[in-house]
Amino acid sequence: MDLEKLFRPKSIAVVGISKKNSLSPGRIVLLKNEFEMQVKVYGIYPSGGEIEGIQLYERLDKLPEIPDLLVIAVGPDDTLDYIQECSDLGIPSSVIIGGGFAEIGGKGRKRQEQLQKIAFDNDIAVLGPNCLGVYAPPIVDTIFLPTERITKPPKGSVALISQSGGVLVDQFFVKFNERNIGVSTAVSIGNRAVVDEVMLLEYFSRVDPETSNIAFYLEGFNEGRARDFLELAKVSEDTVIVYFGGKTREGKIATQSHTASLAGNYKIIYDALRQHYVIQPHSERELLTCLKVFDVLAKKRNPFGDNVITYGEVAIVSVSGGHAVLASDMLKKYGLNAVRFSHQEKRDLKDLMNPVAAEIASFNNPIDLTGSVLDTDIENIIRYLSDVERIECIILLLLPYPPNISFQIGRRVANIIGSKNKPVVCFVPYVAKYSMIIESLELANIPVFHSIKETVQAVSALKQRTRMDNLKLQNLFGKEK
Amino acid sequence: MDLEKLFRPKSIAVVGISKKNSLSPGRIVLLKNEFEMQVKVYGIYPSGGEIEGIQLYERLDKLPEIPDLLVIAVGPDDTLDYIQECSDLGIPSSVIIGGGFAEIGGKGRKRQEQLQKIAFDNDIAVLGPNCLGVYAPPIVDTIFLPTERITKPPKGSVALISQSGGVLVDQFFVKFNERNIGVSTAVSIGNRAVVDEVMLLEYFSRVDPETSNIAFYLEGFNEGRARDFLELAKVSEDTVIVYFGGKTREGKIATQSHTASLAGNYKIIYDALRQHYVIQPHSERELLTCLKVFDVLAKKRNPFGDNVITYGEVAIVSVSGGHAVLASDMLKKYGLNAVRFSHQEKRDLKDLMNPVAAEIASFNNPIDLTGSVLDTDIENIIRYLSDVERIECIILLLLPYPPNISFQIGRRVANIIGSKNKPVVCFVPYVAKYSMIIESLELANIPVFHSIKETVQAVSALKQRTRMDNLKLQNLFGKEK
Repeated sequence: MDLEKLFRPKSIAVVGISKKNSLSPGRIVLLKNEFEMQVKVYGIYPSGGEIEGIQLYERLDKLPEIPDLLVIAVGPDDTLDYIQECSDLGIPSSVIIGGGFAEIGGKGRKRQEQLQKIAFDNDIAVLGPNCLGVYAPPIVDTIFLPTERITKPPKGSVALISQSGGVLVDQFFVKFNERNIGVSTAVSIGNRAVVDEVMLLEYFSRVDPETSNIAFYLEGFNEGRARDFLELAKVSEDTVIVYFGGKTREGKIATQSHTASLAGNYKIIYDALRQHYVIQPHSERELLTCLKVFDVLAKKRNPFGDNVITYGEVAIVSVSGGHAVLASDMLKKYGLNAVRFSHQEKRDLKDLMNPVAAEIASFNNPIDLTGSVLDTDIENIIRYLSDVERIECIILLLLPYPPNISFQIGRRVANIIGSKNKPVVCFVPYVAKYSMIIESLELANIPVFHSIKETVQAVSALKQRTRMDNLKLQNLFGKEK
Repeated sequence: MDLEKLFRPKSIAVVGISKKNSLSPGRIVLLKNEFEMQVKVYGIYPSGGEIEGIQLYERLDKLPEIPDLLVIAVGPDDTLDYIQECSDLGIPSSVIIGGGFAEIGGKGRKRQEQLQKIAFDNDIAVLGPNCLGVYAPPIVDTIFLPTERITKPPKGSVALISQSGGVLVDQFFVKFNERNIGVSTAVSIGNRAVVDEVMLLEYFSRVDPETSNIAFYLEGFNEGRARDFLELAKVSEDTVIVYFGGKTREGKIATQSHTASLAGNYKIIYDALRQHYVIQPHSERELLTCLKVFDVLAKKRNPFGDNVITYGEVAIVSVSGGHAVLASDMLKKYGLNAVRFSHQEKRDLKDLMNPVAAEIASFNNPIDLTGSVLDTDIENIIRYLSDVERIECIILLLLPYPPNISFQIGRRVANIIGSKNKPVVCFVPYVAKYSMIIESLELANIPVFHSIKETVQAVSALKQRTRMDNLKLQNLFGKEK
């Protein structure tokens, strides 16, 4: 099934437009694509006419061209008629917004079977029903929520596939925006009667050039499709990340009435995914952290040169002892380890500092530079640690409170990282007035996080990805590396 | 030892002011108290003169009055001389900013013993050394970081005591601000050579009228002081919350060089605290969630009437199925339970909805109202659930994306909650454009969280507090309730 027309349509048509209700889903989709997106959009209305200057056509067969995609925002029985019309007219793809299918059971389930028969027999790429559909900037956006009510994420490397439209728009769009994580295409799959996670994994892995990270928020696999998903994931050149909602009994009950899926035995799924090199965050926050660090690194291939994190050996540099304690606390949990410095290294580090700070700083790992730190101290320490081969990654907890730290510190650190290529992951508090520091690091493709936990998680995610990449390579080219 | 002069001084003096370096700690403290706080502040400088219009005095004994508090920002040996002078002149309290005491071992440890002897023999309330000191708005602020670099929290009910100054200013101040958690007094205790967590617990519990929640960020108890802390906590009328950094081996190593404390055996401490009715969050985020919900509820005593959460029986109301799944997932982990609705209740709930949404909404618990929801539906559902006695708390996941939800929804929900007094905890995405909704709820003292997890944690915290309050009462008035 060809999904390119679904995600990169040249033209779309919308059915289910209300002339009276300016907030009807069909009307919102018509207007937002007309005024906000690049795709050519046609509206269908039985008696024709126009809305806000957009001409409406009486029927699909009266359109001046066959659209690539039909967005259907009508009741479930009429929906089936429109899918039949897609088949009759040769419209290759459709997004079905409305519900009334498998998720309500009984006759809804029967309707969904009819829908599947028409779609599969006629090779129509149907997304939904019961979904928000596609957000593929700058081309098309079928999300029926008014743009001004929601928050759109920046453009980037992550294809984001969610079984829940609400979670997609709220949990992901809002937090992607906060964290500056970029999306290539976002997909709400709803009941996934036709297009499901397997087809999407294949499309984003093999066809879509903008995507290098494919992230799934699922409540369970589509029935009978887990094996295909795993096989595709195992050979995907993109990084595949799966996060499951609905893990507990309570969650499962909620899931069933939500998108008519079975959460399945989570432990079995977890092990299988791991064996097929899929990255699985343990929490939503960890998912966001993975995507952030992978997206930043995708912006410039190999910003850290060929340096990868294989063993998780880190050095922690902080200007606050308490932050150093918190970060050290978390290392083991995330499979990381603080390297031990030799006496000579500690002496070297001390000699690099200004005399006031040198006296009170602590040069164990974590290194606590104290509030008497200068910009040049941080530069010198990062430069020195970058040359210590057994350190695979530096965690820099950069709090701009010490009075002598300048607003150039981000740029200064970025320059050293750029010259050394040692992986460095930073924590800078998320406060508007530090934007200059945060931006100067992010512009240099150095990942910045706004909590200590996320900073540590990010290093762990990089270690996990190195492992998965190595296993994929071994799998592709035989057991010998 | 009387701490009132430390936290509510009428006048302070500062030693360790540099005329050359405008960023020296002493000078920053002098200027910020002169220009930003209410306290009368005197600067000490050997040759007198002035800085930015503030007259400097040559010696402490030349001041026109004996100050309540001396802020010392000089090297460790001079510090001891100044503490002796406090004794000679009758200055009752002091904040020692600088280090060079127990945290560096050897001669530093000896210095700290000398300091302790002078202070205890002469009843001087010394905070530190090696600390940021006191932030007691609007009176005094000894934090030597420039105000414009840091973020100050709003005024509120939480006394916040931190063993790490960096964690206090960054982790807590920034996040208190983001979450609108109010502070009565914040204290950085550093090496706690004299004033320690026990004295502070006593002061905030028994003396300070502005505090009703006392939160500690500790890396371990002061040696030999755990028992006293526990006994005080057990009878405190305020809610006592303790969170430990430095729990792992790596964390402990970091801790030792940080504030010369021993993290101790965490498991033993944990059990002892629990037996003395201390609330112990499991993560920093959970700590913030506790404080947020306790602070909101402190703003108006009993905003939920006499309703308390004893068993953790909740109803979840969402406009997004995916969010409902995520919230349901978390209930068990946090000791909560979704009540089951009878067939009649489900029918009643359905009848309360607009006909379009009624058809597609789901009335299990969680209740998914769907994107077709209207303001009136939410009002009706909350009103109905408030009258179901076995529901102890409603978790409302309020996503303002559905096109028909108005910006009045916060006020409308707040009015119903106000009339019913059923505990309701809300999730509203943290997006600037929803401020009107968030504010209208918070102005009515309804706690609003910006993640599903925190929302669930908050209900759990309320349940935990009910339990601790009941145990305290039983303990005070005998086993019979």
